[in-house]
Amino acid sequence: MPRINYVEPAVMLATILQWLFLATVAGAFVGSGTSLFLHGLFFLTERTASVPLWVQMLLLPLGGILNGLLLYYGYRWNTAGLTDSVITSVHKQSGRMPFKTVAIKPLAALITLASGGSAGKEGPCSHIGGSLASAIGRMLRLNVELQKRIVACGVSAGFASVFGTPIAGAIYGVEVLAIGRIRHDFLFPAIIAGVTSFEVSKMWGVPYTYYLIPVLPEFSEILFIKTIVIGIVCGLVAWFFVDMLTLSRKMFERLRTRFAIWPPLMPFLGGVLLSALIIVIPTDYLGLSLPLVSRALDGEAMPFLGVVWKTLLVAITLGSGFYGGIATPQFVIGAIAGSAVADLLDVDPALGAAVGLVSVIAAASNTPIAAILMGIELFGGMAGTIYGAGAAIAAYLIIGHRSVYPDQPVAYPKS
Amino acid sequence: MPRINYVEPAVMLATILQWLFLATVAGAFVGSGTSLFLHGLFFLTERTASVPLWVQMLLLPLGGILNGLLLYYGYRWNTAGLTDSVITSVHKQSGRMPFKTVAIKPLAALITLASGGSAGKEGPCSHIGGSLASAIGRMLRLNVELQKRIVACGVSAGFASVFGTPIAGAIYGVEVLAIGRIRHDFLFPAIIAGVTSFEVSKMWGVPYTYYLIPVLPEFSEILFIKTIVIGIVCGLVAWFFVDMLTLSRKMFERLRTRFAIWPPLMPFLGGVLLSALIIVIPTDYLGLSLPLVSRALDGEAMPFLGVVWKTLLVAITLGSGFYGGIATPQFVIGAIAGSAVADLLDVDPALGAAVGLVSVIAAASNTPIAAILMGIELFGGMAGTIYGAGAAIAAYLIIGHRSVYPDQPVAYPKS
Repeated sequence: MPRINYVEPAVMLATILQWLFLATVAGAFVGSGTSLFLHGLFFLTERTASVPLWVQMLLLPLGGILNGLLLYYGYRWNTAGLTDSVITSVHKQSGRMPFKTVAIKPLAALITLASGGSAGKEGPCSHIGGSLASAIGRMLRLNVELQKRIVACGVSAGFASVFGTPIAGAIYGVEVLAIGRIRHDFLFPAIIAGVTSFEVSKMWGVPYTYYLIPVLPEFSEILFIKTIVIGIVCGLVAWFFVDMLTLSRKMFERLRTRFAIWPPLMPFLGGVLLSALIIVIPTDYLGLSLPLVSRALDGEAMPFLGVVWKTLLVAITLGSGFYGGIATPQFVIGAIAGSAVADLLDVDPALGAAVGLVSVIAAASNTPIAAILMGIELFGGMAGTIYGAGAAIAAYLIIGHRSVYPDQPVAYPKS
Repeated sequence: MPRINYVEPAVMLATILQWLFLATVAGAFVGSGTSLFLHGLFFLTERTASVPLWVQMLLLPLGGILNGLLLYYGYRWNTAGLTDSVITSVHKQSGRMPFKTVAIKPLAALITLASGGSAGKEGPCSHIGGSLASAIGRMLRLNVELQKRIVACGVSAGFASVFGTPIAGAIYGVEVLAIGRIRHDFLFPAIIAGVTSFEVSKMWGVPYTYYLIPVLPEFSEILFIKTIVIGIVCGLVAWFFVDMLTLSRKMFERLRTRFAIWPPLMPFLGGVLLSALIIVIPTDYLGLSLPLVSRALDGEAMPFLGVVWKTLLVAITLGSGFYGGIATPQFVIGAIAGSAVADLLDVDPALGAAVGLVSVIAAASNTPIAAILMGIELFGGMAGTIYGAGAAIAAYLIIGHRSVYPDQPVAYPKS
């Protein structure tokens, strides 16, 4: 007879109750924090969305210098000797994040996006999530393991709120911590915090959009293979995106050291460069570019060149030293690339955009499971489930071990 | 400037094309094989579903002795020195499975289920999947790594066909191989094979049922916590189920050695015992018991005692030496337990049944991600997504490191 072990279930029950409490509290704080940020963002970007071109051309360098000054002087407050990165915090800092400087990244992101810098809104939200959760954990004097877990769960909560997909967001927060592995022991806190944070954000009135992608009710093997081709192309696009970002960061850094430029001036120069480029490149590609995503998901065939424009603007924005997120650009590039390739392959561009969006996320962030769930939560039905899944994994493979997150370690190689 | 590396994407592209081919072929064969098995199963079980009690009482010992003889003499054909278990095959046999004896487990399962033995239909399907894929791999002379992967992808294909959930089934096949880790490098083959196999099975006319679970459109924190309580109870139920199975196996084994009973007689004795028990226990709990699952998911409140009946019958069936699957019983027990607990907590029993079903799978099989996806694919909406996910992970934690699959290794501890 198997010895009935009462200790293990008791420990597990205690773990569940502990995290039900900790993750709900963390999720509620993070959901409120991200909502505040998102409302600020919507308020500011609405005001600068349709300014005349010459105003936009002035705003960009102005945003650049403000960003530069904020980041340069702001981090002098960080006397804790800790890096301000959630991935590094979980892996190398025992889940500790600097708290005094918590507002810098969100403020910098607001300036970046309001002035037209091309970037995303997820980075600041996961930063808010990780920082608030870290602070809660330290207030409760959690031990190192619990502290790491609460930071990861704060990150998950941040993504759940900003994506509007509680389960996919939660799993993205866990999966993004390393390539090739999901830590199952992080899952429960992540999902509780993700659901709570998402619901709290909805309560604070953050709007979310979901899309219905039309596909034939019957499965088609040909279409399945075509969506995998879209996935492969999107994986290559993600590869191009990651490499361009790295290249741009290096070039701006070389420029800075070569001419001994004062660091806060770098994003100013980036802003000037962006101002010059938008004479040629449509201003749609500035900021979050969410209207482009909507158009692609509504079935408008997008030009492949859009991928180049968006990549170029993001690479200059982030490479020159603006601070901003890196996930929204993946959505934008994915939706555009998917739509363009779909059009070539005689596939509905809306389906292509949906498949492309999840594929670029799966590849550039190395988060295939979260991308599959995101497809399901954002689009549902066969488009989001079957067609999204095959493409997402193909894209995840083709990009190899590159990542938009330079501090993401490889836990398990892909091939 | 990042050195542009053309080798890695080329290798990855080759990997993708290779698996697009291998997994499609494997998926098509596996989908056909499982369809053949499932049609045979439906044909036989329809004929024995509503026989009078005395016929049922004769059928059970008859099925037992047939099962015993088949397993005892059949495996003499296995001269390869390989174990007939897919999990062992991937971890310890370099992806090799004995092929001469491929039909034994499916035939034994047909006899078990047609004679009223209480078991599942997934084991034989994943067995067909793993064996066919292993044979394809060896015909193509794949190397050890590829051979392991094709077996895993065959297993995924088998689960995708039998569950009727292509993505959840595919991921179940990967996740079930070890506790606490999903091998991302197995995902692409698994998903391609899963989708193909599922679609091939649909083409062969295998019927699938999905359920619409009614929930209020607004999220409720109270309901979320109640579903987590359902998850915790279902985790404990899964624990009870696993321990009873182990206990029963040990007791029958002790009986056999104590009285030196000829092995084929053991399931005969099991059959006699089952015949005696069904004087008290309703015959609904024999066989697959899928009508019980349907009733629970349609909103009928189920008696908690049903968990005990089903567990007892399954433990005797499988413990005494009948061969059969072990996943359908998890569905049955989960749906019953969830429904019963929901009724106590003033939750819609249909929602409770859905949540319970995915929770017991997550716990007893140690497959939380697959369980979440299964909730989404089977039930959809908020019931399948948010409420299912929290409960599934809670159940997965509470069961500790127990498993219905005794050869499932622990890759990463849960706490």
